[in-house]
Amino acid sequence: MKIIKYTTIAASAFALLLLLTTMAMAGDPNGSGTYTDDVAGLKIATNFAWTLVAAFLVFFMQAGFALLGAGALRVKNTVNYFTKSYMDFSIGALAYWAVGFALMFGGSKLFAGLEDGNSIIGWSGWFLTGDAYDVSTMMFWMFQVVFAATAATIVAGACAERLKLQTYLIYSGIVTAIIYSIYGHWVWGGGWLSTLPYGVGARDFAGSGVVHAVGGLVALAAIMLLGPRIGKFNKDGTPNALPGHDVGYIVLGTFVLFFGWFGFNPGSTLAATDLRISVIAVNTFLAGSAGAVLVCYWTFLKTKKVDIALTCNGALAGLVGVTAPCAYIPTWSAVVIGLVAGLIVMYGIRFNEWVLKVDDPVGAVAVHGYNGLWGLLAVGIFADGTYGGVSGLIVGNTGQMMAQIIDAATVAVWAFGTGYILFAVLKRTVGLRASREEELAGMDISEHGYSAYPEFIIQETGESHPANSPERVRT
Amino acid sequence: MKIIKYTTIAASAFALLLLLTTMAMAGDPNGSGTYTDDVAGLKIATNFAWTLVAAFLVFFMQAGFALLGAGALRVKNTVNYFTKSYMDFSIGALAYWAVGFALMFGGSKLFAGLEDGNSIIGWSGWFLTGDAYDVSTMMFWMFQVVFAATAATIVAGACAERLKLQTYLIYSGIVTAIIYSIYGHWVWGGGWLSTLPYGVGARDFAGSGVVHAVGGLVALAAIMLLGPRIGKFNKDGTPNALPGHDVGYIVLGTFVLFFGWFGFNPGSTLAATDLRISVIAVNTFLAGSAGAVLVCYWTFLKTKKVDIALTCNGALAGLVGVTAPCAYIPTWSAVVIGLVAGLIVMYGIRFNEWVLKVDDPVGAVAVHGYNGLWGLLAVGIFADGTYGGVSGLIVGNTGQMMAQIIDAATVAVWAFGTGYILFAVLKRTVGLRASREEELAGMDISEHGYSAYPEFIIQETGESHPANSPERVRT
Amino acid sequence: MKIIKYTTIAASAFALLLLLTTMAMAGDPNGSGTYTDDVAGLKIATNFAWTLVAAFLVFFMQAGFALLGAGALRVKNTVNYFTKSYMDFSIGALAYWAVGFALMFGGSKLFAGLEDGNSIIGWSGWFLTGDAYDVSTMMFWMFQVVFAATAATIVAGACAERLKLQTYLIYSGIVTAIIYSIYGHWVWGGGWLSTLPYGVGARDFAGSGVVHAVGGLVALAAIMLLGPRIGKFNKDGTPNALPGHDVGYIVLGTFVLFFGWFGFNPGSTLAATDLRISVIAVNTFLAGSAGAVLVCYWTFLKTKKVDIALTCNGALAGLVGVTAPCAYIPTWSAVVIGLVAGLIVMYGIRFNEWVLKVDDPVGAVAVHGYNGLWGLLAVGIFADGTYGGVSGLIVGNTGQMMAQIIDAATVAVWAFGTGYILFAVLKRTVGLRASREEELAGMDISEHGYSAYPEFIIQETGESHPANSPERVRT
Repeated sequence: MKIIKYTTIAASAFALLLLLTTMAMAGDPNGSGTYTDDVAGLKIATNFAWTLVAAFLVFFMQAGFALLGAGALRVKNTVNYFTKSYMDFSIGALAYWAVGFALMFGGSKLFAGLEDGNSIIGWSGWFLTGDAYDVSTMMFWMFQVVFAATAATIVAGACAERLKLQTYLIYSGIVTAIIYSIYGHWVWGGGWLSTLPYGVGARDFAGSGVVHAVGGLVALAAIMLLGPRIGKFNKDGTPNALPGHDVGYIVLGTFVLFFGWFGFNPGSTLAATDLRISVIAVNTFLAGSAGAVLVCYWTFLKTKKVDIALTCNGALAGLVGVTAPCAYIPTWSAVVIGLVAGLIVMYGIRFNEWVLKVDDPVGAVAVHGYNGLWGLLAVGIFADGTYGGVSGLIVGNTGQMMAQIIDAATVAVWAFGTGYILFAVLKRTVGLRASREEELAGMDISEHGYSAYPEFIIQETGESHPANSPERVRT
Repeated sequence: MKIIKYTTIAASAFALLLLLTTMAMAGDPNGSGTYTDDVAGLKIATNFAWTLVAAFLVFFMQAGFALLGAGALRVKNTVNYFTKSYMDFSIGALAYWAVGFALMFGGSKLFAGLEDGNSIIGWSGWFLTGDAYDVSTMMFWMFQVVFAATAATIVAGACAERLKLQTYLIYSGIVTAIIYSIYGHWVWGGGWLSTLPYGVGARDFAGSGVVHAVGGLVALAAIMLLGPRIGKFNKDGTPNALPGHDVGYIVLGTFVLFFGWFGFNPGSTLAATDLRISVIAVNTFLAGSAGAVLVCYWTFLKTKKVDIALTCNGALAGLVGVTAPCAYIPTWSAVVIGLVAGLIVMYGIRFNEWVLKVDDPVGAVAVHGYNGLWGLLAVGIFADGTYGGVSGLIVGNTGQMMAQIIDAATVAVWAFGTGYILFAVLKRTVGLRASREEELAGMDISEHGYSAYPEFIIQETGESHPANSPERVRT
Repeated sequence: MKIIKYTTIAASAFALLLLLTTMAMAGDPNGSGTYTDDVAGLKIATNFAWTLVAAFLVFFMQAGFALLGAGALRVKNTVNYFTKSYMDFSIGALAYWAVGFALMFGGSKLFAGLEDGNSIIGWSGWFLTGDAYDVSTMMFWMFQVVFAATAATIVAGACAERLKLQTYLIYSGIVTAIIYSIYGHWVWGGGWLSTLPYGVGARDFAGSGVVHAVGGLVALAAIMLLGPRIGKFNKDGTPNALPGHDVGYIVLGTFVLFFGWFGFNPGSTLAATDLRISVIAVNTFLAGSAGAVLVCYWTFLKTKKVDIALTCNGALAGLVGVTAPCAYIPTWSAVVIGLVAGLIVMYGIRFNEWVLKVDDPVGAVAVHGYNGLWGLLAVGIFADGTYGGVSGLIVGNTGQMMAQIIDAATVAVWAFGTGYILFAVLKRTVGLRASREEELAGMDISEHGYSAYPEFIIQETGESHPANSPERVRT
């Protein structure tokens, strides 16, 4: 706890110091030097509006993640999960403001105040002070911070029901400030992956890799170190299904996420004057739909039942898969990408439970991690050359695929590796797991002192809940 | 099931075929031929942004329908209803991409790739390939597909708690691909209703008829063939109220729908440069408010209690009623339309239960069907001539009213008729109803294998829940 | 009840009268005189789109308030609270259309039809008829009405679980039509506060005072007259915590409110061409995050538990606090404002419970009232002179602070005073409180005849739920 206190004091002192530099800022803090009453000015204003509205939609995805995760978990951990889900973006916003943004976009020279950095790391824009007190830089920060928050929150679900709250909060600051941002620099901040000498360099339009693979693969490292929940695996190593407490929340969360994804993908042009936004929106819709349809019918044909929780993961898988390629592909490719993503999520969950024997209560690793990698590769396969000069295998180009493979391998190593190191350090310092007693009683009581639904009569149940249950996807 | 498999294979083969045509596309897939850095280009970009954001809001209405319906149903069918509510838009998106859009807007020549069609039906734009791989066409598709999905999902609530899931999924594909799209062609795709020689031809600004009456009247046909839920009617034919399980969901669903309606109606200009968008938004707000106020106080004055579930239907009725006329009327008319809509929904529900003796658990037929027709007629009454050349009775013009009556009669016959045929065919083939045992146990177990709230202790109750209860609206 | 009837009849007659004047309107009802195909016209269209989308987001905050309040209340009052939360905006919309808007913006000459008024009160724009039937006026009304509705709904939570529904509905019409609108005129309608001879006159960018302090301080007056819920205070005057029934709803409501706040604050430029919107969005995000982080860790360091319900109030406090200054300050100030707001809400709740001994089930007085005042003062402290000519103490200017103090004092007196008078009159006429029996049984049964969750087994509980519990914030 002392660490927290001293960190707080140090951060405050640092902030106060920067306050002074603020006074002597350059940049254009009110837009009077950026906006002009002509076509050029209006173009900027239109694109500001577009990008900010998209950012707001992406922000709202936080509510979707909260609902989705809460629904898939048991009542006794509901307060705890909602707390993690709420606090990660609050902490993440401050961390990204202070540190992450500067690491990620310093040196990109995209906007004022982002001058300093190299192809490995950036180092300007701290606290949005100085030249970064600029309307364009702020617009860009607003769009980026909600992506950082998305990457962070993916881990919450995978680690749910046993990871200590305070450990999670520390993690969420570090991943947003450092792990996410450094890799993001390589792809979006002008770093080395974006300038690979294959194709046009690695391309990840809206973040299958930067956001989803990072979140999903950090989650994989975390749950390997964390271990499964009590009762998840039998002595013979076979997994059990631990039923979530509200299927409606899973569906509602998926609706909210899908809605927000229309900010995530089309917004990533940062410009409504880039009319490709319409193709991006359509591809997003189709891939998400195809992923759901695949899982719905695949499980139905095998089991004669429809597993809507798994189907929602199919929709999300399709959305994750199309996030990198959404701008570069024709609509039929979006459908194919979504269908493949549906398969990946089903068999990915099965692989995690039966082969890796890890416990991911919401399927985050398969949805975001494996499909994030799939999205990066899909760029190399399906890009049709109509946008951004990106051409994949379907139009006979192999160079782009090489760049995408390098990117996918890089994010796999980086996210899993740094995630593993981070959680290993946390394990030895603050500790990862709640005690056995706390876990059995639920973390709501031990970490919050109250439960989510105090007036409802609750009964723990052994009822088989097939969300993410491997039985459902076995041949 | 074999039908599904073969259909899938056939569709896949067809899609692969079209893939090849994609390669030789015209159209403007990246906007470089559509956008220019001048006033004309910026105007297009501004209107793209407006239309797409509106489409995203309309998409989010799916979550509203899911909440509204789930709240009005019993716990034992919650997973089933959420599944229908989720899957209909996923299947609908693919169906509208493959078939519906081409039937609806082929021949409209509104955008590239929509050249072929006549006043009865369109036949170009399949799979958004060829010339339809164009940023403007895609923008338009994105806005249209969410309307198609809205029409489809209206039926889910009316048929809830006894219609088989797989039958519903087949229905949702067919209504989106064919029934909705062909009638839509007549009104919005340049078809015969839009060119009637009365007034300026039939006008349905945002779809009181195209979306809501189609959904609501297909629903009426469906529930006539489907029959009421067990326990809905007594032996003497009098109806019982079957309480829904979450009143909060009903209110939240209404909030979400109201929010989305601000995309639905103002977005239907497809242009922010059409400044009438502000009047449309205001009219939308006022009609929805007036519908709620009417039902709230009408029921209160009769019963000394406020029935919030019915009041929410009043709000939705006002919104449905103003959807066709929203662009053509002054604000006081919106209030009057909303008040009348509130009366229509109350007495429409009563009519359905006491005269037609059909069982519509959420009141969808009255909200969307009857008020959809009211909206079409309201154009002919209240259009004040300030917009689009549409003048109604209040400014002394009778021609428009004639066009609107023809439109209303047409949609009533078309939607009810084709809906009846469709559900009659489904009844004789795949079957409509779950078995008596399944229905009594709830469809969650039989069709999904799990329940929505496994940890909460549930008890079926005979408590009188007055949502849609006729007692409440009797004199 | 007769009063309601006669009021309705009178209002209807008045509306019909105005109908006639509508026919002879000026203004620009379809935009043909406002929009032109050039830079000037496009600028207007872009700003219409921005403002309307922002208004839609603010509308959606109604759902956030509904969720937040419902979650913090007991099951037995859920239907009642949702009803209040839903009906207040419906009634408020009609009241603001008929009366409030004219009182608030009449004389501002901001748009057509708003010519008449003085620095105390406005008197033109009634029912949006006449010259006010204009696209710009309508755009402006749409943005303003959702703010009025926000102010009104703040009171619902504070008075929950014992204020009679019909009394609340009467209140909501009056506050929207009169109390909110008159004060609003002074600040935003060109009234005397906006032209104070200190600094540039009082400034309240997005309504810390106009919306939040008004709502929060009317609420304070109301709960003083209303008295605490049965069981809230012990005989020795110490307060008890009465647990809410759904912690998840509290978090979800906060997410929705936060999302809507991105319309509330950045939208208040009414212009995307004012590029300061990006700074406003960033400040909004940071202040909300800082408020949550402060409360989260403050309570954690004292109690070793995280109180997520109180933390959500911290987030909202930060948002309220930054609402007035959001446009005028650098980002570090937003963080400081949020941190201070977090302290204010914690100690404000404690002050209310332990010193004033009033019962505010959701903490609305501290969140909106006290932090609304804080927001007004924060303008005078942190405005850095980069925008709107507003300079505060940090850049050595004391004049603005004087204007802000006068504004804060004015709203405190006005909102508390008129709120007190209104509720005192209501107490003597229609009555404020439900009977003891009704309150103990819950208002769902007495005022609605049904409960929110009829199938779930509910048990009233004495479990200590620490939302807003003073134990949590005691040293």
